[in-house]
Amino acid sequence: MELPKGFGAYVANIGIKDTTTDFVVVAAESVCPAAGVFTQSRFSGPSVRVSRENIASQSARAVVVISKNANVATGERGLTDAREIVVGVANRLGCDPSQVLIASTGVIGRMYPMDNVRAGMRQVPVAPSSRDVDAVARAIMTTDTVQKVAEATIEGSNARIVGVAKGVGMIEPNMATLITLMFTDALIERAELDKIFRRVIDKTFNCVSVDTDTSTSDTAIILASRAAGKVDLAKFEQALYEVALALTIQVARDGEGAEKLIEVCVDGARDARQAKIVAKSIVNSPLVKTAVHGADPNWGRVAMAIGKCSEETDIDQQRVVIRFGPQVVYPTFVDTSGLDALSKYMHGDTVRIHVTLNTGKTSCTVWGCDLTSDYIRINADYTT
Amino acid sequence: MELPKGFGAYVANIGIKDTTTDFVVVAAESVCPAAGVFTQSRFSGPSVRVSRENIASQSARAVVVISKNANVATGERGLTDAREIVVGVANRLGCDPSQVLIASTGVIGRMYPMDNVRAGMRQVPVAPSSRDVDAVARAIMTTDTVQKVAEATIEGSNARIVGVAKGVGMIEPNMATLITLMFTDALIERAELDKIFRRVIDKTFNCVSVDTDTSTSDTAIILASRAAGKVDLAKFEQALYEVALALTIQVARDGEGAEKLIEVCVDGARDARQAKIVAKSIVNSPLVKTAVHGADPNWGRVAMAIGKCSEETDIDQQRVVIRFGPQVVYPTFVDTSGLDALSKYMHGDTVRIHVTLNTGKTSCTVWGCDLTSDYIRINADYTT
Repeated sequence: MELPKGFGAYVANIGIKDTTTDFVVVAAESVCPAAGVFTQSRFSGPSVRVSRENIASQSARAVVVISKNANVATGERGLTDAREIVVGVANRLGCDPSQVLIASTGVIGRMYPMDNVRAGMRQVPVAPSSRDVDAVARAIMTTDTVQKVAEATIEGSNARIVGVAKGVGMIEPNMATLITLMFTDALIERAELDKIFRRVIDKTFNCVSVDTDTSTSDTAIILASRAAGKVDLAKFEQALYEVALALTIQVARDGEGAEKLIEVCVDGARDARQAKIVAKSIVNSPLVKTAVHGADPNWGRVAMAIGKCSEETDIDQQRVVIRFGPQVVYPTFVDTSGLDALSKYMHGDTVRIHVTLNTGKTSCTVWGCDLTSDYIRINADYTT
Repeated sequence: MELPKGFGAYVANIGIKDTTTDFVVVAAESVCPAAGVFTQSRFSGPSVRVSRENIASQSARAVVVISKNANVATGERGLTDAREIVVGVANRLGCDPSQVLIASTGVIGRMYPMDNVRAGMRQVPVAPSSRDVDAVARAIMTTDTVQKVAEATIEGSNARIVGVAKGVGMIEPNMATLITLMFTDALIERAELDKIFRRVIDKTFNCVSVDTDTSTSDTAIILASRAAGKVDLAKFEQALYEVALALTIQVARDGEGAEKLIEVCVDGARDARQAKIVAKSIVNSPLVKTAVHGADPNWGRVAMAIGKCSEETDIDQQRVVIRFGPQVVYPTFVDTSGLDALSKYMHGDTVRIHVTLNTGKTSCTVWGCDLTSDYIRINADYTT
């Protein structure tokens, strides 16, 4: 996959942790409209702080990402290091440091090896020219098993949107996301880009959870080079949604240790908030996740996960309907022939749980994954 | 361990699921003060509904527990069955059905095998006379690996409090608890008993979480036979706290698949609510739980779990202190000799995480357990 027109990339290993690529700069040919949303964590890192400051102008020239070290909980020195990197990259590109965004991901509580970082920065070309999106996606990976890329062409134009994402653990973005970078060559104004980006993120990356743990480093950024001219805004939003949705589902499916994608749709809800609370309660329940892992149509656990939303007092268990795939499992009890079909469905690599609350008319869909022994194995020995 | 004076028990297998004991009645010699708190689940079962109605009088004669079947999400028939059991037990004891409490635990969404239950009820003696607390505790177990019992004598008296509890999965009680039954022979008035019981439950069973999943069947009940005479109320509350705390810790340590007890103390908090939100966020984080399982002093995950309490905007990462056991790990970085001690500490069977927020002066302690492959194994194949 190729970057949209007007962007170039530089990818390298600069010795952060091992010999895989760990450093990437994606730069536009000139400063361009940009939007970003970030973690709400009270332990957010210096990268998030610096990027928040720099994107306040709704414009940027480039983004630099360092993977395998999150630069989080590193105090004043961590902040100084982040600012030095932004300045270093800006100097190479010949732009103002306030036009460079930064994201980091990896272990918390370690200082960057700054000698390596400085040597690496000196190699950044004045005009990064690689168009290879997969290389960018691979360079930002930590425990991801596959790179995550998606693209769409905006209907009625030649403009494209390309996105990359990383993140498979510590994933429950909260009004923000893990790390995802999107690039478009559509001509779009800053304020419009910002509004559309936030709406799309809210329906996609803010609806995924691997393990209920919100990262300190969540960062979602989009840059628009404008090189491919004007587009219809509604069609732009649709294309952006498709890219973000595809990346969201890739993140859920590659959740640490995951073998199955879980999609939970809650409809007939009082409002969007209720739909999301119930859907998240189901997709985050370890007992639902382990039941899906065991291909066990244990709908009682879905009932439990709905029930524990105890502040939603308008939910009446007599009016709730629960389905696995197309099959109603509550309140209608499944007969034997239905059980066979259900068992076959549960053995697939995607399990859709559909709940109708009958408290209203709003719906929400969220994505997650099953909970497996591999999740334990991966996370019981990560840092030391 | 023996029941307090004025109580007798009957324990049996009545064929709910297998050949282990699954039916228990504990009766007082006459109607006596009682208190109870129950799940807030929107999918709470008929047992919870019937017990709530019957304990409104703050008095009871007996409690019947059926294990291995929760009688939840069973509709009108489930409710009819629960009422029939209460009537049946009351008839055997010669009391009013409104004086009998009922609790159930086990699989959700299955009807009781009522023929077996009816045959079993016919065997209940008019005056249950067993004093064996361990037999009661074993009869209410489902996936528990050990029975959970505790006792205390009220200082300055001969009165005792004895408690049993069950529950190792679907455990995050919410203003209620799993199933715990307590019995005392102290002479105590109904209103006092209710007040003290609620206060103690809030500091003990409402501070435990195995897996964030709140049961549909949580029930905590205490009966006071008054057979041992008057007691000092403050000393009664202290003794009740000791019994409830001991049971709470037994529940956490026996969490499904658990190998280690995790105790999280948050102090220097703005208020009790903030302390509990942060403590629960830590003890419930799958990444903290897997790090403890791997004996990995990965304090960055504790920082993450504090950080994700994003509505607690007065938490400042520069003022937070994190300790594993006695060892400060943030913000002071541990030197090599400290790391050895820390590693040894993390390999113990109890890990204490102590966080000082420095936003105020309130504290809260909660209990949980590590997350292991056995949790996955146990729960990936439970019903079918």
